[in-house]
Amino acid sequence: MSTQELVLTGDRPTGPLHLGHYVGSLANRVALQETCKQFVMIADVQALTDNFENPAKVHENVFEVACDYLAVGIDPTKTTIFIQSMIPAIAELTIFYMNLVTVARVQRNPTVKTEIKQKGLEESLPVGFMMYPISQAADITAFKATLVPVGEDQLPMIEQTNEIVRSFNRIYNTDVLKEAKALVPKCARLAGIDGQAKMSKSLNNAIYLKDSADELVKKIQKMYTDPNHLRVQDPGKIEGNTVFEYLEVFAKDTAKVAELKAHYQRGGLGDMVVKKYLMEVLEEFLSPIRARRAEYASDRAQVMNMLYAGTQVANETASATLHEVKKAMQLIY
Amino acid sequence: MSTQELVLTGDRPTGPLHLGHYVGSLANRVALQETCKQFVMIADVQALTDNFENPAKVHENVFEVACDYLAVGIDPTKTTIFIQSMIPAIAELTIFYMNLVTVARVQRNPTVKTEIKQKGLEESLPVGFMMYPISQAADITAFKATLVPVGEDQLPMIEQTNEIVRSFNRIYNTDVLKEAKALVPKCARLAGIDGQAKMSKSLNNAIYLKDSADELVKKIQKMYTDPNHLRVQDPGKIEGNTVFEYLEVFAKDTAKVAELKAHYQRGGLGDMVVKKYLMEVLEEFLSPIRARRAEYASDRAQVMNMLYAGTQVANETASATLHEVKKAMQLIY
Repeated sequence: MSTQELVLTGDRPTGPLHLGHYVGSLANRVALQETCKQFVMIADVQALTDNFENPAKVHENVFEVACDYLAVGIDPTKTTIFIQSMIPAIAELTIFYMNLVTVARVQRNPTVKTEIKQKGLEESLPVGFMMYPISQAADITAFKATLVPVGEDQLPMIEQTNEIVRSFNRIYNTDVLKEAKALVPKCARLAGIDGQAKMSKSLNNAIYLKDSADELVKKIQKMYTDPNHLRVQDPGKIEGNTVFEYLEVFAKDTAKVAELKAHYQRGGLGDMVVKKYLMEVLEEFLSPIRARRAEYASDRAQVMNMLYAGTQVANETASATLHEVKKAMQLIY
Repeated sequence: MSTQELVLTGDRPTGPLHLGHYVGSLANRVALQETCKQFVMIADVQALTDNFENPAKVHENVFEVACDYLAVGIDPTKTTIFIQSMIPAIAELTIFYMNLVTVARVQRNPTVKTEIKQKGLEESLPVGFMMYPISQAADITAFKATLVPVGEDQLPMIEQTNEIVRSFNRIYNTDVLKEAKALVPKCARLAGIDGQAKMSKSLNNAIYLKDSADELVKKIQKMYTDPNHLRVQDPGKIEGNTVFEYLEVFAKDTAKVAELKAHYQRGGLGDMVVKKYLMEVLEEFLSPIRARRAEYASDRAQVMNMLYAGTQVANETASATLHEVKKAMQLIY
């Protein structure tokens, strides 16, 4: 690329991060920070939209998520990590953008519609939850992000953001806001250990980056394989077999994985043998992350100081954008 | 009162202020500043919710409204006058409160429902307009106002604010937010010069505080009286006669007004005689206001500095509240 992309991404601090996060986004961020300017937001304000009655959970997970970031190699000298609630410009931009979006339009947002259904919020939908796509537009535009890594299901959010950008620039006769491109990761979503399509805290099927070696062993032991593979000598299925799916992603020795697959398919290879290998592979992957994480977690002040420093940088960027926005809106007196 | 009331009130800067504002709110503020702590907000952000395509109008009227305030005797040494868009804490509080109000609840707000109908916004209702009662709750609570002067039609706004206060204090186990009482002024609403119930810029039936003596004369000349009072010698009606309504409010010589009324009712008193008297009365009322206003308007820097100083004070108060709110929400790291 000729001009450097600016990436805005982040997580809602509602729990520690797991292998699904690593595969779906964290690994990508570690790579992106080498070529792009990257802002990673710990989205506590957004987390509160559906956790407003549980502020302690959000509070504590800001620190947990920060430790996870550092442990996997998101480098605060390359990536600006910041706390959303400490950036007032985001709230101010959200208020301004709310004038540019109709109620009918946010209610039509497919992502929000699905989530409302999943969370059973039809009857008692809070305003904050309904309009969070507008807040996300504020997150993205506050940093003039050009690239936003999102899952396929989040594409309508980027669409909504760009609609706001175009409306704003047209109405206020400016080019201060920038449209963003979605970056949909190529890698497939990592299944849960129970074989469900998505690894998630709420489904209780996650392997966390901070899981101990013991926890890891226990989780792999009960991992979903081929439910019809009852006797060792029988042929087993690879498709939908979570153990093999994980090996595919994490094992470096691809020849060995291919060999195990063939053996499993023709029969004679027990689940426990494959699982033992996965334990080795994941322990090798997780143990340095776990060690770094423990070190960071033991020095809360250091982690928080890193967050404060990142937040200060983020604040300067977002405040500068807000000033330009207010100027375009003739709100500078 | 044993403890001092804190008053929060203000205007949307969408036009210069008129006699209707004076009677309905400005006179009240001049009185309240003697006994209460008073914050008067120039609500530019709220004005944008239905003027977002016309930012120049909002911008210029911030100054106009400030001049009107000073001209009628709102005293910046007694009242804190400030610009809403310069108080980021209001936007942040609004975002937090949006989690505590359901979409169904804001859509049920009678004031908003009426206004949506009046403005023909049913089809294309902007999110910002729908949720402005939540923004108003942020305005009020940011200053811990205990008393909010409102018209009868705005009572649902105070109700919505107090609902948010109670929800917030309950959910976050705090007493940081304060409920507010509505202060509904006793004085009737001033009719427009065309006899319509409400004086308003959009109805083009207003006498502005800054109107020149000539403009005043012209407006009173075409003022609505008794449409059946065709010949001087005929009896005329006082009820619904705008000229007499204004004399009722503004003439100090109540004996003279009573005499004119009686004469008009028994016949033999022409409209022009009564109007000439109203011209005298209103010119006596408006000329010192107009003179002070011209003085302020000629020194924009002085007026703006007064606004900046008030805004700074308001910012300190609102920031302190926001800090307490964030503490209750465990958003201090």
